[in-house]
Amino acid sequence: MRLWTIDATQPTRELASQLTVSNGLIGIKDLTEIPQLQTGTATDTVVYVNGFYDYEQIQYGEAQFGFPQVNQTMVPLPAPTCFELWLDDQPVDLKHGQLLDQHYQLSMKNGTFEHRLLWEERGTGRQLQLTLRRVTSLQTAALLSQQLQVRAVNFERGQLRVLSGLHPQATVRPAGFDPRLTEYNTAEVVAKQRLKALTPTLQGATFTAPYSKQQLNTITYYDQPGRWLDSGQWQVTLPVGRQAVALTKNVWYELGAGQLTPKIKAALTQSFQQIATAQAATLDDFWATSDIKIKGDDDSQRAIRFSQFGLLQALGRHSGQQGMAAKGLTGSGYSGHYFWDTEIYEAPFFYWNHPELARRLLMVRYRQLPHAKDYAKSLGLPGALFPWRTINGTESSAYFPASTAAIHIDADVAYLVIRYYQITHDEVFMHDYGRELLVETSRFYLGYGNFDQRKGFVLNTVTGPDEYTALVDNNAYTNYMVRFELRYLTQHFDWHDLRAQGVTVDEWHQFKAAAAQMYFERHGDLIAQDDSFLSKRRLDLSTIPRRNFPLLMHYHPLILYRLQVLKQADLLLAMVLLPEEFTTVQVKTNYDYYEPLTTHDSSLSPAIYAIAAARFGERKGAIKFFKRTINTDLQNLQGNTADGLHLAAMGGSWITFAWGLMGLTVDDHGVQLHPVLPQGWTSCQFKLRYRAVVYTIKVTPDQLTITGGQPAKITVNQATRHISIQP
Amino acid sequence: MRLWTIDATQPTRELASQLTVSNGLIGIKDLTEIPQLQTGTATDTVVYVNGFYDYEQIQYGEAQFGFPQVNQTMVPLPAPTCFELWLDDQPVDLKHGQLLDQHYQLSMKNGTFEHRLLWEERGTGRQLQLTLRRVTSLQTAALLSQQLQVRAVNFERGQLRVLSGLHPQATVRPAGFDPRLTEYNTAEVVAKQRLKALTPTLQGATFTAPYSKQQLNTITYYDQPGRWLDSGQWQVTLPVGRQAVALTKNVWYELGAGQLTPKIKAALTQSFQQIATAQAATLDDFWATSDIKIKGDDDSQRAIRFSQFGLLQALGRHSGQQGMAAKGLTGSGYSGHYFWDTEIYEAPFFYWNHPELARRLLMVRYRQLPHAKDYAKSLGLPGALFPWRTINGTESSAYFPASTAAIHIDADVAYLVIRYYQITHDEVFMHDYGRELLVETSRFYLGYGNFDQRKGFVLNTVTGPDEYTALVDNNAYTNYMVRFELRYLTQHFDWHDLRAQGVTVDEWHQFKAAAAQMYFERHGDLIAQDDSFLSKRRLDLSTIPRRNFPLLMHYHPLILYRLQVLKQADLLLAMVLLPEEFTTVQVKTNYDYYEPLTTHDSSLSPAIYAIAAARFGERKGAIKFFKRTINTDLQNLQGNTADGLHLAAMGGSWITFAWGLMGLTVDDHGVQLHPVLPQGWTSCQFKLRYRAVVYTIKVTPDQLTITGGQPAKITVNQATRHISIQP
Repeated sequence: MRLWTIDATQPTRELASQLTVSNGLIGIKDLTEIPQLQTGTATDTVVYVNGFYDYEQIQYGEAQFGFPQVNQTMVPLPAPTCFELWLDDQPVDLKHGQLLDQHYQLSMKNGTFEHRLLWEERGTGRQLQLTLRRVTSLQTAALLSQQLQVRAVNFERGQLRVLSGLHPQATVRPAGFDPRLTEYNTAEVVAKQRLKALTPTLQGATFTAPYSKQQLNTITYYDQPGRWLDSGQWQVTLPVGRQAVALTKNVWYELGAGQLTPKIKAALTQSFQQIATAQAATLDDFWATSDIKIKGDDDSQRAIRFSQFGLLQALGRHSGQQGMAAKGLTGSGYSGHYFWDTEIYEAPFFYWNHPELARRLLMVRYRQLPHAKDYAKSLGLPGALFPWRTINGTESSAYFPASTAAIHIDADVAYLVIRYYQITHDEVFMHDYGRELLVETSRFYLGYGNFDQRKGFVLNTVTGPDEYTALVDNNAYTNYMVRFELRYLTQHFDWHDLRAQGVTVDEWHQFKAAAAQMYFERHGDLIAQDDSFLSKRRLDLSTIPRRNFPLLMHYHPLILYRLQVLKQADLLLAMVLLPEEFTTVQVKTNYDYYEPLTTHDSSLSPAIYAIAAARFGERKGAIKFFKRTINTDLQNLQGNTADGLHLAAMGGSWITFAWGLMGLTVDDHGVQLHPVLPQGWTSCQFKLRYRAVVYTIKVTPDQLTITGGQPAKITVNQATRHISIQP
Repeated sequence: MRLWTIDATQPTRELASQLTVSNGLIGIKDLTEIPQLQTGTATDTVVYVNGFYDYEQIQYGEAQFGFPQVNQTMVPLPAPTCFELWLDDQPVDLKHGQLLDQHYQLSMKNGTFEHRLLWEERGTGRQLQLTLRRVTSLQTAALLSQQLQVRAVNFERGQLRVLSGLHPQATVRPAGFDPRLTEYNTAEVVAKQRLKALTPTLQGATFTAPYSKQQLNTITYYDQPGRWLDSGQWQVTLPVGRQAVALTKNVWYELGAGQLTPKIKAALTQSFQQIATAQAATLDDFWATSDIKIKGDDDSQRAIRFSQFGLLQALGRHSGQQGMAAKGLTGSGYSGHYFWDTEIYEAPFFYWNHPELARRLLMVRYRQLPHAKDYAKSLGLPGALFPWRTINGTESSAYFPASTAAIHIDADVAYLVIRYYQITHDEVFMHDYGRELLVETSRFYLGYGNFDQRKGFVLNTVTGPDEYTALVDNNAYTNYMVRFELRYLTQHFDWHDLRAQGVTVDEWHQFKAAAAQMYFERHGDLIAQDDSFLSKRRLDLSTIPRRNFPLLMHYHPLILYRLQVLKQADLLLAMVLLPEEFTTVQVKTNYDYYEPLTTHDSSLSPAIYAIAAARFGERKGAIKFFKRTINTDLQNLQGNTADGLHLAAMGGSWITFAWGLMGLTVDDHGVQLHPVLPQGWTSCQFKLRYRAVVYTIKVTPDQLTITGGQPAKITVNQATRHISIQP
């Protein structure tokens, strides 16, 4: 089994998502570079540029005050990786010949996509070996490089005419696609494309989104002496022989109107080999810290790598201001929006391995704080409320019970601030940005909630993570997360530390009081998901026909909201995120209660149950949900991988491994590990970066070793297989 | 003061609503029959036909499973009451002359609208007296009769050319109109009008609604020998002199493709005088039972009559299958939809005065029961759920938290079944229809709710009458009304009485148990509006600027839902509807708690607080809210009378008088009255029809007399001013 590559022979819509290459800024999805040689069904041929969006008017059946008026939609751009070929003026297509072989490969080690085809001409029997390679540069995020290599397999020479340009279509809409996905008229954007020749070999084009008026500048370079046609396409004739001939096309993508600078020109005119070599070096560096080496379970080995590679591809290493979309840059699902998945599911991999990237994620939120303050204000509330889904920082959701009401988003951001700080002790960040994020979100909660004489501090009319329950009182997840934030803020900062944020002694005491009096509906160790959850009728999921999942596609919200049924982990997520606050018995009690009620209709769910199960030693459940999480997209387990990869499950794969199987936790005092190897694993080795020191942890069934970290105090308790790292 | 008419001299959009004539089937709104003589701003010129609707696709920002796909919209039809005049070939308009006088009058005694204009020709000084009279027949509901009478005031003779046809526009959209009101393209409907000559004097036209494909047949008759023009208009030249000349135009409106029958022809060719005479006779009959005679308060006298007349106009006396729209047939507000207002606010006047009309309202629901069963089924629930807003019986609301979740609609229908039966003992109705309505709605509640170990029978995730709170648990109004229904059903019917409805002994016991264990959140005499209401922050309404009312136009639902603030009476409504279940102290305690939190942003609110205040002797509050209710539309107190009259406030006027000031209540055992005269009233007299006997009750400050009702036992307790009527 190949442990560093994803391989396939036939294009499918799922494969197109899996084999997308991206670098956090640009993503390209294209399995049919030579449309005339397309086999199977049509698949997406599209480029996404993170942060390039258009507006769409939101239509409401019954609009109400304060509802967002426009939606942001990531614009699916036509892919520039289209080639049409003629061999001695005969078309290279499936009418004049046949495909003898085809192979797709994504290399996670090199960061390269490769597509090989062996075509045989009808009549003559002449064979051409065609190889298409592609890189979205992790060094120079604006750069897409595409190579076409052609070799005559069984003849001496010929003339190959190549016509290259944009694919005519961007995304494919399968029959019966989910109507909640936005349709965006690509043709309209393409029509706005303005071409301009910059130099004989460089041609520019500017795309303008019709409603947002945002501009995207592109510059195209070919390394062979061809010519630009009036159609905007480019053509060249190359001699083809036993020796492979290669054509490289590089494209530069930049938000804004853009200009050709010497630096851009130098980047653009690199050879494919140069770019690919730099890419491989960047990935070597990435894997040096990130790689989890598993012995004894090749499937998991490859799947874990695929997840980590996916996370890197979604975020990249550039210094841009873009966030991380729920589908990364692999599909149009969720319109390219950023959600809380970033902070809770995806950030942990980064803060434990690449904290500078976690910091970038925090800075995305920090820069959007002015929008978040406006949003809170529009609700008549103090502080800041981050949008439920967004690209530019303003709310892009049309259904407030499952968006605006999900006010836990603020505590999720705060959670990232706190964990990032606990791991890095990045004082500059905390001083300049973190405190402000904590104060403004805490302020929002003080305004949203109120002190009730009977119950204490209550947060009424909210929606928690579980989207099959909405507009409830005192969602436990929300209240735990808010309490964690308020406690942290008041324990680590006295009110004069927060004077710059305008905090008064009175406000500080209110923060403290809200934390101290936070209300939870408890019945012994069983904690109610919200005030009314336990009084609802339990839905017996075994009575629901398999075809009726996901339930939201088959039942009215009033059915789901009214019953004890979960789309995804809710209270259990709080238990996983805040292990310091719950006993093992509590985790088990609530797991046993809530898991049977959970449909896992959300890809955010299985990872959390895996970790919870690991916490109380339910190894079987832990492994089951671990496998499910890491295979979410490789096995298309949610059924919609075609619309893009599930980045939350990719992040979920890492936390399931680290927090679940390895039992990793952190608090102000240090790091704890409590590893358990799944059956069949003969060893596993991984790294953690804690307070600027890289630790290597190796676990075998009978040995634990930890290297690195001289300054820290490391305790390995062999008996309980427990490791503590203290700074 | 004129106590039987509404008079005015200038057209306004509000006046157009107030002076609409309608008969439950057709409504016509037109203050500018002669557009060339229009003064002031444009007003609606429109005909509504109850039950003639089109579909509109509902657009959702984020649709979910089971959301309605189409909306029904009452079609605003062009009014056929348009006249253009020429005197000796000179236009009768405001360029060639001026208006010396204008008077509008709606007579509630005769059921006639009259519009008089005195026009003087520039240069010649010739004056024309123009009188337009209009009747929508209460005898023959399909019939609209319009008369134009012209008299030369100060000259001997002239030739008057009259061109008559449809007004070009239907409804006027003022700047900044409420976007929740539906816009419907009348032009599109008009374009579908097909003309056909039936006889020389009768011309037919069929309107087809473009999407619903519903047809409306109209036949037009003029009583003068004119001619039809190709444009579809009709023209005549009449000699005009000191003796008035009159032209009558009658129009027949019939749902369906229709045909000209001898009966229709006979009805259509009646003179205006014949029709007006019949109308006056019908109204004499109506007022004989309905009239409330108030001495000492002319304003209230006229306003009460206006309300009762409005109720009659909205329902009519025809035998059709249409319901009663929230705005009757006086405007496009709420798209002509029927709501629960009918059962709770408007039906009481009818069941106490004209029970045959209350029965018709019940039959409207009964006939829509199959739709209601389908609706429940679409939610995965047994029984029937009536739609929140509808014309044809299917749900027409796009925002389920304030529609589908308002499941009290079923109990509201049941309440009408029960009160109607208590008052009439209409055994046939109860046997053939009433029981089924009670069983199917009870069944729905058993399915929707569940027995919770701790609380008892709970109805979670519902919305009560107060629309500033949504998706809560155990809304007290809902639970009281459902308990009332379930108790009534199980106390009056043993399970074998309900075998025809498929009720088993087990189901019957479940009904009984649900009633017995119905959950209420009580704190002494204070009853929580729902489980979480009292834990929310109280909104101090005195801090809200006046311009920010109604709140829903200025605050996001999450603000309103999260606070203790009411759009309208909620728990208090249950107290008013079910006086047998609450003590005076309870009413006062809850009035004192909830009234200061109530914005009365809904016209459904003040009436209820008036009645509640009267119950515990808060005379000042009772009178204040009584006055506000009866003047809702005469004084445009909601600010949107232009969009149509508030039928719920018209019904509210009657119940405020009868249930509030007169202290009228009914139960299985009899009727109770406990009248209190407002200051200044020297006497009042009204009638009630109870078990087929008409009682006349006269109240003066020091005397109570009751006449009629020999078979009943009447007790008048002078000391407490309390009357009991027992069958």
